[in-house]
Amino acid sequence: MAHTDELYLGKTDYQVLGGRPVRHDGTDKVTGKALYAADIQLPNLAHGKMVRSPHAHARIKAIDASEALKIPGVFAVVTSEDFPDLSDKFALMGEAGQVNLTYLAANCLAKGKVLYKGHAVAAVAAASVHIAEEAAARIRVEYEVLPSVTWVLDAMKEGAPLLHEGLRTDTMGKTGDQPTNVAVHLQFEKGNIAEGFRQADVVVEREFRTASVHQGYIEPHAAVAMWNEDNRLKIWSATQGSFNCRQQVAELLQIPVSQCLVVPCEIGGGFGGKIAVYLEPVAALLSRKCSRPVKMVMQRNEVFEGTGPTPGSFVRVKLGATQDGRLVAGEAFLAYDCGAFPGGMIGPGCMCVFSCYDLPNARVDGYDVCDNKPKTQAYRAPGATQAAFACEQVIDELAERLGIDPIEFRLRNAAKEGTRRVDGPVYPRVGLVECLQAAKTSDHWKSPLSGPNRGRGIAAGFWFNIGGASSCSASVNDDGIVSLVEGSTDIGGTRTSVAMQLAETLGIAAEDVRPQVADTDSVGYTFLTGGSRVTFATGLAAYKLGLDLQEQMKQRAAAIWDCDPASVRVDHGVYSHDGHSLTFKQLAAQIAQNQLDPVVGRASAAPEGSTNTFGVHIADVEVDPETGKVTVLRYTAIQDAGKAVHPSYVEGQMQGGAVQGIGWALNEEYFFDNQDRMRNASFLDYRMPTCLDVPMIETIIVEVPNPTHPYGVRGAGETPIVAPPATIANAIHRAVGVRMQELPMAPPALWKALSRQR
Amino acid sequence: MAHTDELYLGKTDYQVLGGRPVRHDGTDKVTGKALYAADIQLPNLAHGKMVRSPHAHARIKAIDASEALKIPGVFAVVTSEDFPDLSDKFALMGEAGQVNLTYLAANCLAKGKVLYKGHAVAAVAAASVHIAEEAAARIRVEYEVLPSVTWVLDAMKEGAPLLHEGLRTDTMGKTGDQPTNVAVHLQFEKGNIAEGFRQADVVVEREFRTASVHQGYIEPHAAVAMWNEDNRLKIWSATQGSFNCRQQVAELLQIPVSQCLVVPCEIGGGFGGKIAVYLEPVAALLSRKCSRPVKMVMQRNEVFEGTGPTPGSFVRVKLGATQDGRLVAGEAFLAYDCGAFPGGMIGPGCMCVFSCYDLPNARVDGYDVCDNKPKTQAYRAPGATQAAFACEQVIDELAERLGIDPIEFRLRNAAKEGTRRVDGPVYPRVGLVECLQAAKTSDHWKSPLSGPNRGRGIAAGFWFNIGGASSCSASVNDDGIVSLVEGSTDIGGTRTSVAMQLAETLGIAAEDVRPQVADTDSVGYTFLTGGSRVTFATGLAAYKLGLDLQEQMKQRAAAIWDCDPASVRVDHGVYSHDGHSLTFKQLAAQIAQNQLDPVVGRASAAPEGSTNTFGVHIADVEVDPETGKVTVLRYTAIQDAGKAVHPSYVEGQMQGGAVQGIGWALNEEYFFDNQDRMRNASFLDYRMPTCLDVPMIETIIVEVPNPTHPYGVRGAGETPIVAPPATIANAIHRAVGVRMQELPMAPPALWKALSRQR
Repeated sequence: MAHTDELYLGKTDYQVLGGRPVRHDGTDKVTGKALYAADIQLPNLAHGKMVRSPHAHARIKAIDASEALKIPGVFAVVTSEDFPDLSDKFALMGEAGQVNLTYLAANCLAKGKVLYKGHAVAAVAAASVHIAEEAAARIRVEYEVLPSVTWVLDAMKEGAPLLHEGLRTDTMGKTGDQPTNVAVHLQFEKGNIAEGFRQADVVVEREFRTASVHQGYIEPHAAVAMWNEDNRLKIWSATQGSFNCRQQVAELLQIPVSQCLVVPCEIGGGFGGKIAVYLEPVAALLSRKCSRPVKMVMQRNEVFEGTGPTPGSFVRVKLGATQDGRLVAGEAFLAYDCGAFPGGMIGPGCMCVFSCYDLPNARVDGYDVCDNKPKTQAYRAPGATQAAFACEQVIDELAERLGIDPIEFRLRNAAKEGTRRVDGPVYPRVGLVECLQAAKTSDHWKSPLSGPNRGRGIAAGFWFNIGGASSCSASVNDDGIVSLVEGSTDIGGTRTSVAMQLAETLGIAAEDVRPQVADTDSVGYTFLTGGSRVTFATGLAAYKLGLDLQEQMKQRAAAIWDCDPASVRVDHGVYSHDGHSLTFKQLAAQIAQNQLDPVVGRASAAPEGSTNTFGVHIADVEVDPETGKVTVLRYTAIQDAGKAVHPSYVEGQMQGGAVQGIGWALNEEYFFDNQDRMRNASFLDYRMPTCLDVPMIETIIVEVPNPTHPYGVRGAGETPIVAPPATIANAIHRAVGVRMQELPMAPPALWKALSRQR
Repeated sequence: MAHTDELYLGKTDYQVLGGRPVRHDGTDKVTGKALYAADIQLPNLAHGKMVRSPHAHARIKAIDASEALKIPGVFAVVTSEDFPDLSDKFALMGEAGQVNLTYLAANCLAKGKVLYKGHAVAAVAAASVHIAEEAAARIRVEYEVLPSVTWVLDAMKEGAPLLHEGLRTDTMGKTGDQPTNVAVHLQFEKGNIAEGFRQADVVVEREFRTASVHQGYIEPHAAVAMWNEDNRLKIWSATQGSFNCRQQVAELLQIPVSQCLVVPCEIGGGFGGKIAVYLEPVAALLSRKCSRPVKMVMQRNEVFEGTGPTPGSFVRVKLGATQDGRLVAGEAFLAYDCGAFPGGMIGPGCMCVFSCYDLPNARVDGYDVCDNKPKTQAYRAPGATQAAFACEQVIDELAERLGIDPIEFRLRNAAKEGTRRVDGPVYPRVGLVECLQAAKTSDHWKSPLSGPNRGRGIAAGFWFNIGGASSCSASVNDDGIVSLVEGSTDIGGTRTSVAMQLAETLGIAAEDVRPQVADTDSVGYTFLTGGSRVTFATGLAAYKLGLDLQEQMKQRAAAIWDCDPASVRVDHGVYSHDGHSLTFKQLAAQIAQNQLDPVVGRASAAPEGSTNTFGVHIADVEVDPETGKVTVLRYTAIQDAGKAVHPSYVEGQMQGGAVQGIGWALNEEYFFDNQDRMRNASFLDYRMPTCLDVPMIETIIVEVPNPTHPYGVRGAGETPIVAPPATIANAIHRAVGVRMQELPMAPPALWKALSRQR
């Protein structure tokens, strides 16, 4: 990992950045030509189907596939036995850190026990989806049902049903000695909280609960695997990271990474939920067994029941402030469930709970807790939304009790350059203060809101930009168009935001770069699309690529003009020397005509994740006291994007994140019955907001340059989901006086709270 | 074009070069998974079919597609009218030089006149091949039949039917003033031939005729075109050069090159015949018109009648030598037909006719002549075989009349370093002498041959390695395997021969490089696979790529060891510094674990075509005097390959070229009826040799390093077809005393000659 240098060039006169070119992949997306994994067709393609557990927790006593295998057109059945022995095997996966392969494999195909309803137990490949479904139904699995648990605090209790008998708590590196569901206990501390709270004039302490919610991407998981006769494995996948998918599959199958080729297909949303593999290794095992390519596509209920939701959480936050509105101490207790296997989102939860504020004294305790839900996965700023829901309400209450305007109170305590987070890092140049000031002067904040049961809330949110490696290459065509090959799955328009940075560097138009997302054989290692990293980190690689191309263009110009390359000047894509002058396109044509070496470039970058993105949201709501239904009347998202490369995409991220946050705030939840089975595993019953449920989300982009990127770019994708639940809770409080401490704040919950108040 | 520097490194201890690793694409080829253009399936795919002329020469008076368009499932019909106006438009196509776009378009779809039987006139796209065929049959074309001509000397006569009324002869840049079929008259001269012939003690002058023969690749031409809604055009093609295909299509449709993406599919042989486009632009026009992807696949008769054979030729050679066996003068007259459009193979024919010998005085006159055959195309060493058939027989006769051993005679006059060819260039280090010496000491030459009607012949052959640009890129995977992306269509195993050169440079195994041939958006400009250039020129790019990767590996090692990159030593892929040492694979793993910038490399090279490859062939034949049938008893091909990268592939090229040459010598010909219609347009009637027709071709590789390549590599693909017809003719002469001056030397021709002799 490169040391985080000061890279910002201090430019202000961008030619390409800040523009809004049409996305390069737009035509294929709107005409339906873009290829998703489920679109892949191959000769002799077999179709795979999972057999899933009907129980939340059970021991697998026997699996009998004999009846299934008798059905004509059934080719193969696999179970966890088909994986190689992965006992105690771990894999280092770049920025994602150590991954426990036993757990990863057992989440793909249960080993010994099923740990949640919908847990995959076996898979079958057959000539058609229908035969595969029929065969899956005839695979007999004998279970011994065990008691189960799905609420994080229950799972922490002594005597709770244990998911993993060998699991011991890791407390900052020290391993516990008792069987438990608590995989990790984290603790961060700064200053002296006892002393801090002694200085406080006002202290507020509250507890908050959030339900599991799903990422809710439109496209279900899909993968096609083809195990070739030369033992090369080719996979087409709906994945957020082709190289991460490749590594997971290779590690699970214990083959070298380069033996596996992953083709990243277009992706219908991921939000963090399409990083872990589910289908890919199973399709590979089936393909190896039946010597055909195998396609597996989940149905919606499989997505809900078998893939990662965000953690359900319990968070207690205590904050103390002086009479003049200065925060002096904070304490937080966070328990997040990680579902069936350790490795949840408690880390970022703990890092984010107080990340918006300059707290001199603070302590954060976090717990990663297994329970009988699907293994949790990242969901857009994973762990931060639950933490902000707690902290930002306590902040709001403190401000109210101190009689200080909530923006003013936040401004007095806002994290800024030099602030040290409770988990250690010191902020570089960040933009929370600027966001709060933008909120203060916004039309929304300055507009009056009147009427009964109406209230306006505000909250802040924080998220990282992770780093990690990105690579790209490019060639200059004779007509001056640059073909760009990059490795980042394009979820939010990053083909264009990366191409724009290359274009800016070369002094050409965004339309004159043609980006493509290539497979793992065709581009250098590129870490996944997630952690708001692509426009930042792959953009950095594109900048370096531009320098490589530009240097070669200078050399070619020098060859044409018979001069020293160092004496060739470049200004906005025009190459000149001693009266000669050629535009980028003219020079490209000259290179071809003179049969000079073609210009091909390459670059890679592995920046540390150092940039930090803050946002502030404002919501006006109206509560129907009869039903508890909340209507969002007006909503504004304000965010520091560093230099906003393509403002429409930044706005789109802000709007999309806000809407997902509103859904999380008001409606979404995994609803479990008394046998811990999810009962609303469909889009009909799992209610996500539609465009009819939300107002137009207003956006204000704040641009505080990121010092660790040449153009000051910050990733913008995740921060917008952090503030919404707290923002709306604060608005509800202002509207009807109740403080909602539970998500979702759905009509039944709010109606109950209003009833208690009455 | 880079100046041809002395690049040879003088290495002798190769680790990879000279080995015989299994070809990287072998599995997919033998299992049938390799994708050829005809394998491409797409949603809504339409099938295109050509309407072809039944006449050898006719004016098109009207085309009426109305009946065809009435058939359900017929989507579109195109004619030459659908091309943009290309009048007087030319395009510079890299090493291929100026291309007349009017002619190129008119060869795809006839404009005004049809110029050969099988000339495409219109094309139709329909829902199935069968509907398309039916529709093509219902397109009414009204012709006015014109007189035609298919023999080159007839076409040169005054009063011959004229193909192009506007055509005037270009004589070394001067344009003639009379309508003619002679497109070009070339003349090369060296010394003073009158003076030269005065010195000669013996002069031999003879005339030779050769019939048109076809390249005979197994895979018929096939292309799929998809005109996208954003006006990008994607083409899958059986092409020898994706970038050349791209440029031809783009120029014909008058769109920027980068608007067109060409995917080079696997190719079932080309031999020069899959460079010009036939189907691609027509499929593109159909696709644009019907808004569907369109596939076009030729049938075998379309390949014979509609695509380029090699020129039919008339060659007169006169050579004079002194009594002591020194060549003093030569004169050659070559008339090659180019078929329907100017631009044949007369240039290389003239350059090659005397290229094996150090002739102090020589003159060569060459004529490029249009006649009513398909436009000729390159066929393995294009133009050289016809010339060698003439020259090497005259050389043989001279040696015989001087009583000098034919090898000895050739050795006395062999071209060597410093010899200036009649067309100007001076040879660098070449290996003809070494090949002749290898012939002399070969088991074949030293073995006695006895029996009636048996004879042994020998002949030499020459071909160039053309240069042109090649690009490639690569990335180093965590497991140390290098993914190589190159742009050269792999016809003869060049994935492996290029990968081996990268492996040699990096000090890793050939198997540790995974090559792929990428599309035109995914790799830098790479000129076509032809002219024996790929292993030479793309290999040079791979060498430079290796240096780029190695330099970065050194930098990463230095980052790990915290030292100056310049102090890191590399020896056979092991990186070391001050007691530290890491193999390439270990270092690759360390780079990933330390999250350093991934290693991605790129290189391009555009060498001049400077290397020259000589071969010497020996054949033993037996003639059946009753039938004129020739049986090849034994055959040895000797060739200078420079450093033979993969000797099996070099041997394969030598064997394949020899067999094609034997077919050309003994059997193959375009047979025209009295209306100049080809009558043997099938593999049943057009008789190519099978393995039953030829003995095992013995091979002797001679390795004289090419000074313009770091590893001394020469291209090897084309030279082996040059000598066979002359070799066999010389053998026939030794066997039965007749000198065959016409190809093919098929039983009827030889029987006639024997009858005349009797």
